[in-house]
Amino acid sequence: MKDGRNILIVGGVAGGASTAARLRRSSEEDRIIMFEKGPHVSFSNCSLPYYLSGEIEDAEDLVLMDPELFLKQYHIEARVNQEVTAIDRENKFVTVKNLASGESYRESYDKLILSPGAAPIVPNIPGIDKVNLFTVRNVVDIEKLNQYLKAVPSMEAAVIGGGFIGVEVAENLTKAEYKVTLIEGTNQILRPYDYDMVQILHKEISDNGVDFIVEDTVMEFEKDTVVLSSGRRIKAGAVVMAVGVAPETKLAREAGLLLGETKAIKVNSDFQTDDPNIYAVGDAIEVMNALNKQVMKLSLAGPALKEARRAADHINGRKAEELSFIGSSAIKVFELNAAATGLNEAQIAALEPKIEYNFVRIILMDKVGLMPDASPLHFKLFFEVPTGRILGAQAIGKGDVTKRIDVIATAMKFKGSVRDLTELELSYAPPFSTAKDIVNYAGYVGSNLLNGDFKQVNVDKVRGILEEGNLIIDVREKGEYARGHIKGAMNLPLSELRERVSEIPKDRPVYLHCRTGQRSYNAVMALQNLGYQNVYNITGSFLALSYYEYFNDKRLQREKIVTEYNFR
Amino acid sequence: MKDGRNILIVGGVAGGASTAARLRRSSEEDRIIMFEKGPHVSFSNCSLPYYLSGEIEDAEDLVLMDPELFLKQYHIEARVNQEVTAIDRENKFVTVKNLASGESYRESYDKLILSPGAAPIVPNIPGIDKVNLFTVRNVVDIEKLNQYLKAVPSMEAAVIGGGFIGVEVAENLTKAEYKVTLIEGTNQILRPYDYDMVQILHKEISDNGVDFIVEDTVMEFEKDTVVLSSGRRIKAGAVVMAVGVAPETKLAREAGLLLGETKAIKVNSDFQTDDPNIYAVGDAIEVMNALNKQVMKLSLAGPALKEARRAADHINGRKAEELSFIGSSAIKVFELNAAATGLNEAQIAALEPKIEYNFVRIILMDKVGLMPDASPLHFKLFFEVPTGRILGAQAIGKGDVTKRIDVIATAMKFKGSVRDLTELELSYAPPFSTAKDIVNYAGYVGSNLLNGDFKQVNVDKVRGILEEGNLIIDVREKGEYARGHIKGAMNLPLSELRERVSEIPKDRPVYLHCRTGQRSYNAVMALQNLGYQNVYNITGSFLALSYYEYFNDKRLQREKIVTEYNFR
Repeated sequence: MKDGRNILIVGGVAGGASTAARLRRSSEEDRIIMFEKGPHVSFSNCSLPYYLSGEIEDAEDLVLMDPELFLKQYHIEARVNQEVTAIDRENKFVTVKNLASGESYRESYDKLILSPGAAPIVPNIPGIDKVNLFTVRNVVDIEKLNQYLKAVPSMEAAVIGGGFIGVEVAENLTKAEYKVTLIEGTNQILRPYDYDMVQILHKEISDNGVDFIVEDTVMEFEKDTVVLSSGRRIKAGAVVMAVGVAPETKLAREAGLLLGETKAIKVNSDFQTDDPNIYAVGDAIEVMNALNKQVMKLSLAGPALKEARRAADHINGRKAEELSFIGSSAIKVFELNAAATGLNEAQIAALEPKIEYNFVRIILMDKVGLMPDASPLHFKLFFEVPTGRILGAQAIGKGDVTKRIDVIATAMKFKGSVRDLTELELSYAPPFSTAKDIVNYAGYVGSNLLNGDFKQVNVDKVRGILEEGNLIIDVREKGEYARGHIKGAMNLPLSELRERVSEIPKDRPVYLHCRTGQRSYNAVMALQNLGYQNVYNITGSFLALSYYEYFNDKRLQREKIVTEYNFR
Repeated sequence: MKDGRNILIVGGVAGGASTAARLRRSSEEDRIIMFEKGPHVSFSNCSLPYYLSGEIEDAEDLVLMDPELFLKQYHIEARVNQEVTAIDRENKFVTVKNLASGESYRESYDKLILSPGAAPIVPNIPGIDKVNLFTVRNVVDIEKLNQYLKAVPSMEAAVIGGGFIGVEVAENLTKAEYKVTLIEGTNQILRPYDYDMVQILHKEISDNGVDFIVEDTVMEFEKDTVVLSSGRRIKAGAVVMAVGVAPETKLAREAGLLLGETKAIKVNSDFQTDDPNIYAVGDAIEVMNALNKQVMKLSLAGPALKEARRAADHINGRKAEELSFIGSSAIKVFELNAAATGLNEAQIAALEPKIEYNFVRIILMDKVGLMPDASPLHFKLFFEVPTGRILGAQAIGKGDVTKRIDVIATAMKFKGSVRDLTELELSYAPPFSTAKDIVNYAGYVGSNLLNGDFKQVNVDKVRGILEEGNLIIDVREKGEYARGHIKGAMNLPLSELRERVSEIPKDRPVYLHCRTGQRSYNAVMALQNLGYQNVYNITGSFLALSYYEYFNDKRLQREKIVTEYNFR
């Protein structure tokens, strides 16, 4: 056995632990030491919120591997409660502080991997010491929060920030029967989703008893109270700060390693920092966005594991092509599932140079409608015009949304076009999908748009269309119309379209909708074939409109543009 | 409005109804008539079995559109109970028999589309009139079967044939508390699955109280009795024949249209028969297999809908590239879900010219293991060597198997390689998947195999390995070993591997396993790095072995090679 190298790893969670395990599989002789400043290595970061609701019963379960197991199974030394405080790059050693004893010592390295992660941002808001403030980063954090809450079962809790962690914490605390206020400073939660799509989630959160506030920010804290810019005062025995995370770069910075334009650690395509003996992976680094070719921070577990493997393989002399990311994510929000991949509309609109694009927004059943648990799935997909290249997608529903997004993410990996989606052969049986799956259907709609077969406007334009006095035709049947419709919309059922077509003027734009957009699409095509030039399908139709208007109508107490919402 | 064409469609279910709707969207002036010999158009074929269990409560729900709605919404004439009995190609008319009145009439066409489907095969077995025989093709069939069974609630039923329909009927009848015998002539049900994978489903069917018989065929029928070749006699008040389907080619044959080598209707890449005015789609035609470039019959709804759209578009002058198929399918089998795409091992082995291939067979949790409903997912994927091109995949488990197969089917559409799977960014949150999803993991294992990093043998080889007196090492912990292990396997836990490595001989092959193959893979890598040349990972390990042996051990009452099975 040849002499091994000293390989040190800073951080023992996703990226660090993965790098260590992969390194070991390539070599028995290397000495691998992993330093973790917390008491646990290899815990399930993303599962932390589920401990609050009791879905995960035991906090110990959150810890996947302990140092003993790392040593025995992988011959990897995992040193917990030990913080790497400095790197001496010239002499290739790190200084480690044993947080239990307070003593510091040195450990020399041949290769060093930084996987310190990102830390919750805690803005310095006046009065911050007047509330019981918590963040959610690790097992210690979540246990602290949980113990505190358990002591006062009727506790009111405020969650500040509507990102993934904020929403998951709000949901799990609600399920544990705490009275939860969720405060988001912008006009929407969960940035990967477009404003029109996210309204479905806004409604879900609001309907589930969360006091859900958008467009309001924390001015200051008073005793057990959050004071908002609007003047609202939220009573909260516990405050969870979840406004975002910042890469842990102190160690790298102090060692003189280069940071990137996002202020995260800069790495090359082999995940080396500007010191070739020092690698960095995970939430602390910036990566390349495969779509807009810009660097970005990406706090996702999947990419961290991919980076870890790449770094380990590079250390062992394996070459690979450059790794860039599109960023796929998923979240459960009460009874709804949501997933997204690639760019959203705001990101596409911000591309430089500008590109022409269009989108598909459809609502279809997630499985055969006859199945007892079938439910509508809202799907939005962006593509470049005229190439059809897929740019991103979002899906929300009770059913299997991650499947559809994963298929799109896979097509995007191969630089697929919306036309390619028509040909995908997806596995079908009534309990799982429909014979023409949502993804195929999106392909057809997108191809039709690329071909110029029809025109559409998105559901977010309906209020404006009405205000401008345009003609909206509701092609649903009379009974459906009676149960709720757009004020001022003309009801002309698809089943009467051909006999009553003379009632539709040819000299002005006509906007058609039905429940989900499928019947109105057929009506649009029929009208075009009958010589109408200026007809538009309203994407998502009445169902999407109900979701789009509901939360803000209630919140702003503004006049509704429908007689009744209809979510069925 | 210009003069329309007469477009006639034979068959009003998936392919026919889809062609009609697509034709209408391209033109208002064409006269479109759809003939269906049964009483229903546009019913959900694939959902029929679910009516037997009551999951679908009302047979009327199975019918998606009635002729009135076709007429009103699409201006399509759907004539039910009318059978097209002859085609006069020279004079371009068909003869139609009104099955209600018995009268025949002619209808002329400019374009004719054949979508007659496939009919259940009923072999001429002696005594066939001595049992109450049913087939499952349409709503009438399933209502007849259901009514018959309902009249005798304690009915014993036999299902002959373990294809998709046979298995679904057996399951749904079992759920309705009939005593069901499922009889399959070959050694396995559901041909898309390899023998080692399908054992998981064999166990599920057997465990759910179905009297499940393989490798036995029906010799003859006696009064309410099925007599098998083995001599077994199965009492059955109802017999469901589900041994397969044959394309309905009578009409085409009698009109002199060309059939292909599979005896299905031959079409070109625009789904035209050898008469350019006659198209054919759906189960009655043969299509091109994208992987082995051979023609095949493909009785799947998804391809039928794709073909329908292509035929309609060609009639309206739209060109498209050739459409070939890989064949993706899914089925629910009691609590398990199964899905498959592309070629299975038998099909790959039969390829001419022969290709070199390898496979990944792994078992991983379908979502983060901490989630209460997490469960193991069995996954098998074939790829070409050395290109890595993906050839097919199969997945079985309680969780989301169709997602993984759909991702693979998508990668295959783009001619993806197993290496590509490592880079897929799949949407992740603990309720849906793991940060390194099964698909990514399969990519890593496949890449390792391509790189020659390790060797494996499949679980189906274990009995042979034992019989040859080879050394099997079980690297699970002692407690796991005690709860069931391979007879004669040496227990050397991964956690003791390095200190006890001297106990492992270097001069003979060593076969390693653990519960699922992950720890044993780490052990294999460690041993190789310690100088062992001849070590193999047993794919699927003890969990797969338990499934692999269980059903046949019980059935054949043969000596078990394990002390106890373990399915946990």
